[in-house]
Amino acid sequence: MNRYEAEHRFALARVAHLATVTPAGGPHLVPCTFEVVEGRIVSVVDEKPKRTKALQRLANIRANPNVALLVDRYEEDWTKLWWVRANGRATVVEEGPERDAAVAALTLKYPQYVDQPPSGPAVVVDVDEWTWWAAVPHGEP
Amino acid sequence: MNRYEAEHRFALARVAHLATVTPAGGPHLVPCTFEVVEGRIVSVVDEKPKRTKALQRLANIRANPNVALLVDRYEEDWTKLWWVRANGRATVVEEGPERDAAVAALTLKYPQYVDQPPSGPAVVVDVDEWTWWAAVPHGEP
Repeated sequence: MNRYEAEHRFALARVAHLATVTPAGGPHLVPCTFEVVEGRIVSVVDEKPKRTKALQRLANIRANPNVALLVDRYEEDWTKLWWVRANGRATVVEEGPERDAAVAALTLKYPQYVDQPPSGPAVVVDVDEWTWWAAVPHGEP
Repeated sequence: MNRYEAEHRFALARVAHLATVTPAGGPHLVPCTFEVVEGRIVSVVDEKPKRTKALQRLANIRANPNVALLVDRYEEDWTKLWWVRANGRATVVEEGPERDAAVAALTLKYPQYVDQPPSGPAVVVDVDEWTWWAAVPHGEP
C-alpha cells in the first residue's frame, strides 16, 4: 500500500473511528460517517439518536483540535487485515458554506442522508499525517 | 440494549479500536484483538508486522493510563447500527502469570494465534465506565 492507495481506501470506507482528547486528558472515541473533500476529512453531526446535543467530541475539539481518524478492515483471514489512519487538526464549523459543502458531500456518499440531511455542526479535519498498515503490504484491498 | 447486553456484544466482537493519549496530548488509535477476562479487557501485542517494537500505544499507556476501547457495527441499514465503548485505566504487563493468562484467553478466542501465539506485552484494562448506543434501543444485534 502506498500513500495514494491508503488515502483511496480511507475515502471509500463507510465508517471511520474518531478519537479526540477530553479536557481532562482522556481519550474519547466514536464511530462516524465522513467524506474526504479536497484532501480534508469532513463529518457532520447527524440525526442518529444522541444522548445529548452538547456532544463530547465537539467540546473536545474546541479545547484540543488534535484528532485521529481510523479506518480498518477485519477478516478472519489475517493476511487480509489493513488499516489507514489520519492524524490532524479539527475545526468545528457551525454554519455557512463550508458546512453546507460538507453536508452536500456526505449526502452524495450516503443516500441515507437524502431524506434526513445531517443538521448539526461540521467537523473539518486538516490532515497532518497519513499512516497505514497492511498484513500483506502489496495485497489487494 | 442494557449494560449486560452491551458487555456481551463487546466481548463477542472480533476487533476493537484502542484509543490512547500521547505524551504530547494528542489522540492515538489502533485496531486490536482482545478478550474480556473476569471483567477486564486484555490485549497482547502480537506478531502481525509492526513498524517498530517500541509501540506508541505502550509508551502512551505508561505515561497516561486512560484508554478507550470501542466496538461497533456498521450496516447500510442504519436502524442496525450500534456501538459499545469501555473507558478505563490500562496497565502494560511485560511478563508473568497475568500476561500468560491473557495469551491463553486470546488463543482460545482467536484460533489464528494457535500456531503463532502473541509474544509481546499484555495491555490489561480495568473498565471504569461502559457506554453504549443503538439506533434501535431494543433491537437485535
